[in-house]
Amino acid sequence: MNRLAKCLANYVPLTPLTFIKRASAVYSDRTSVIYNGVHYNWSQTYERCCRLAYSLRSLNVVKNDVVSVLAPNVPALYEMHFAVPMAGAVLNAMNTRLDAKNIATILRHSEAKLFFVDYEFVPLASQGLRLLMSERVDNNTSNQPTMPMVIVIDDIKNPTGVRLDNKLEYEQLVQDGNPQYKGEDVEDEWDAIALSYTSGTTSAPKGVVSSHRAAYLSTVSLIQGWEMGTEPVYLWSLPMFHCNGWTFTWGVAARGGTNVLIRHTTADEMYKSIANYKVTHMCCAPVVLNILLEAKSHERRDLASSKVKILTGGAPPPAALLEKMEEFGFEITHAYGLTEATGPALVCEWWSRWNELPRRHQSRLKARQGVSILSLSDVDVKDTKTMESVPRDGKTMGEIVLRGSSIMKGYLNDDEENAKAFRDGWFLTGDVGVIHPDGYIEIKDRLKDVIISGGENISSLEVESVLFKHHAVLEAAVVAMPHPRWGESPCAFVVLKNTCEATEQEILAYCKNNMPRFMVPKKVEFVKRLPKTSTGKILKHELRKVARYFYTR
Amino acid sequence: MNRLAKCLANYVPLTPLTFIKRASAVYSDRTSVIYNGVHYNWSQTYERCCRLAYSLRSLNVVKNDVVSVLAPNVPALYEMHFAVPMAGAVLNAMNTRLDAKNIATILRHSEAKLFFVDYEFVPLASQGLRLLMSERVDNNTSNQPTMPMVIVIDDIKNPTGVRLDNKLEYEQLVQDGNPQYKGEDVEDEWDAIALSYTSGTTSAPKGVVSSHRAAYLSTVSLIQGWEMGTEPVYLWSLPMFHCNGWTFTWGVAARGGTNVLIRHTTADEMYKSIANYKVTHMCCAPVVLNILLEAKSHERRDLASSKVKILTGGAPPPAALLEKMEEFGFEITHAYGLTEATGPALVCEWWSRWNELPRRHQSRLKARQGVSILSLSDVDVKDTKTMESVPRDGKTMGEIVLRGSSIMKGYLNDDEENAKAFRDGWFLTGDVGVIHPDGYIEIKDRLKDVIISGGENISSLEVESVLFKHHAVLEAAVVAMPHPRWGESPCAFVVLKNTCEATEQEILAYCKNNMPRFMVPKKVEFVKRLPKTSTGKILKHELRKVARYFYTR
Repeated sequence: MNRLAKCLANYVPLTPLTFIKRASAVYSDRTSVIYNGVHYNWSQTYERCCRLAYSLRSLNVVKNDVVSVLAPNVPALYEMHFAVPMAGAVLNAMNTRLDAKNIATILRHSEAKLFFVDYEFVPLASQGLRLLMSERVDNNTSNQPTMPMVIVIDDIKNPTGVRLDNKLEYEQLVQDGNPQYKGEDVEDEWDAIALSYTSGTTSAPKGVVSSHRAAYLSTVSLIQGWEMGTEPVYLWSLPMFHCNGWTFTWGVAARGGTNVLIRHTTADEMYKSIANYKVTHMCCAPVVLNILLEAKSHERRDLASSKVKILTGGAPPPAALLEKMEEFGFEITHAYGLTEATGPALVCEWWSRWNELPRRHQSRLKARQGVSILSLSDVDVKDTKTMESVPRDGKTMGEIVLRGSSIMKGYLNDDEENAKAFRDGWFLTGDVGVIHPDGYIEIKDRLKDVIISGGENISSLEVESVLFKHHAVLEAAVVAMPHPRWGESPCAFVVLKNTCEATEQEILAYCKNNMPRFMVPKKVEFVKRLPKTSTGKILKHELRKVARYFYTR
Repeated sequence: MNRLAKCLANYVPLTPLTFIKRASAVYSDRTSVIYNGVHYNWSQTYERCCRLAYSLRSLNVVKNDVVSVLAPNVPALYEMHFAVPMAGAVLNAMNTRLDAKNIATILRHSEAKLFFVDYEFVPLASQGLRLLMSERVDNNTSNQPTMPMVIVIDDIKNPTGVRLDNKLEYEQLVQDGNPQYKGEDVEDEWDAIALSYTSGTTSAPKGVVSSHRAAYLSTVSLIQGWEMGTEPVYLWSLPMFHCNGWTFTWGVAARGGTNVLIRHTTADEMYKSIANYKVTHMCCAPVVLNILLEAKSHERRDLASSKVKILTGGAPPPAALLEKMEEFGFEITHAYGLTEATGPALVCEWWSRWNELPRRHQSRLKARQGVSILSLSDVDVKDTKTMESVPRDGKTMGEIVLRGSSIMKGYLNDDEENAKAFRDGWFLTGDVGVIHPDGYIEIKDRLKDVIISGGENISSLEVESVLFKHHAVLEAAVVAMPHPRWGESPCAFVVLKNTCEATEQEILAYCKNNMPRFMVPKKVEFVKRLPKTSTGKILKHELRKVARYFYTR
């Protein structure tokens, strides 16, 4: 048995690059990309990627070099998901909502060799580059930051002519490339394919390094977990810089599907695409669900006869929101993931027998995060003090821990965070959840957002989900507030809907009727808006600072 | 990038054993197995596998030991697909249509440590074991064959009490096992999980060794290629000994589906199962399609409202057959595979636009073998003299070659065949085909010598070698003859020695005594000489033309 050696025919590194090569061979004339009237088929997309990869090599990109890109969901960003690793390099897709300081930090930390910038983001990028350059001037002896070569991505449909000093432009690189070049061979599936910075809600951004192996396995597992069939028409309502579009950048190629790209995630653009191209699939954060629901009547279009399947995650969508979306004709699947897991790690797989249950019960089941995708070999909820598993009772909270080949290689140049993230053969997510008797996991909170009141663990998310159901509440965030008797107590920050009014007493009375007494906030503070990160995550530590002030005043 | 090391959390060997552990955690109370009134759920099936794996270890099974089994599609054979590798051992599922001599050869070659035998096959197995023992007696100095420990698999529903000398019985091993035992850790995904013998192209059976990695990747790719959704109800019309049921032994666990097991693949059993359990999926050779079509009216049942999806392969199904099956309410997908590829390697993925075509045209498209599954990184059709790819013209024939991590580790103890099978980073299938302009592959002429009868590969060389041993036979050539039921049947052209005489009946009787029943020619034609090339090679394509005439007359 053991004498049989690996050879080139039976042991080939796993990589999502296989998917585009295969797509160009067997789905060659199927539409691969649609963007603002531009249409490509898979043969063309593959050729464009080959050409770009060749040009990257001509610009001296070599193995493990980082290629950064700051762009919305345009064809260039899609193509770079293949072309950059084809050149042996590592793709760093940056969040377009970052500020110049973050951009400079990431360019410095990643030591990016090239930096592609969509024309719309040239001012922001230039500001970031100036900051980087000033560090260089300030610090001229050692540890100089690398200045990347910058390439503008002009609009492919309506070129603006915007260029930077070196005049390099994306489309020109594509045209100048050699279409016969098929890319560098992936030597080892453990090699890096992507570097994605988390927009940590508390700490400095961390650079998550994903391997080709993880990307491959996560992609095929998600296609399966979500049951994305053949020939999907996939609307890019999720930014590709979010963990490589939850791997669907690669997944749509694996499925021979069509990528419908839009520059702005507006209700108008989304409904137009859904109607015009018969969209079948899309991913998004719950905030996009709200955009779809709140569309004005002239923006809204009839959905095609078949349902649009939506995979959502990022924050647990309130049951009421799920119900409304289903009424609109969308079929929602709930997932939970993180950049460190190379996309969603849990998917709420639906049981056919749940179809018999009342709508409200269905929504409760659907709001759970679900079960591990196939590429994870193990998922558990543990008391991470003892590393003991919690009972499957749907009540006992613990930290969600993951293990499997779709977990990141680690954080780039960050031994300290790596030491914290991995323990006893597990990756610690920092998220708190429970396991229900049926094995489905439900997230209760971020570890640091749990409120410990008189020895009881209170999930801030659970309190928030009740608040969301109040007719006047648009947004709500609940954090710990110091309390002389209970140690901590919940404090609610509430944004009311424009058209509604409510008093603290009314909200509190509502809470008392809808949750256990110990979970009822001790204070409700009405605010105009909640502090958020560039990716839309609520900055709870900012709120905690305020809550501390409430108590002491 | 490279400093980031693998750890137990982010690099876990790929193995289908993950699937059953996961199934027991998240599909615990879904029905896993139905057999003749016996029902298990995934929690029970997993526990039974844990127990059996423990008992195997108690019987001194250690890593890389071979455990052989001769059984129809009963629960034991299904469970062994997990329990045997859980014990670190390698599963050898034997073809129940073999004869005693083949069985002895395989037991000897594989050095099987344990041999599980279904009660119905005890006489055949005993005969095989006696042959093995006689070799032992004949050859008492060196190279003694290992005598395996034999364990009877009694019928789980209606035990017969049949036992062999040591009285060991499968169900007792399950009951005696420790349910807390979770199996040995898979140390390396390159380790062997299965050993499957194929008659292939030469007369000696070859032992195909599959790795855990290949089994995992092939399983997930096939689920995807065939679009097997969640909660499938899978009817076992395909023998599990056929390349581990084309990986669906593991695949049904990955999908949280239900295995409907039947001992005999009769029309009655199949239609009953389809109706009673709402079967959604089944795999089979085209011969089984004929059984379904030719069912008597009292055997036939209405299909459930939704279609039954069938994956078929082994011989290209005639267009007329496909059309009839679709009229019956079955949805056929055509695949092409081989044991060396750990199951199907090509699947004829359907394009939605083909639905607009006339039925006959659709059948022609459907009869093609299709496109590579995702786990293969490359598939091509080449002139294997030059290793040049043939043009994609649907006409130029070449040999189908494969590359990817779902290809076998190699043939067990067969350096010569391994050297022939792998060349320049490709696995050579020995099958001849064309590539159509759309990238779909169609097999034109299966390896010339192989006859595919009812899904079984029959090596003509093997049949010939038996014929040659008949005292009256001077020369013999065996080719495929069309057969309405089996697709193809062997037809023997025989030249008798000048001094001898023999009748067709005598030759057939001789064959029946010296080879498995399915290999026995359906016709023996006596000829004066065989058509040959100038260098003395028999022109088999000439004989095939004649054999075609036999059938049509």
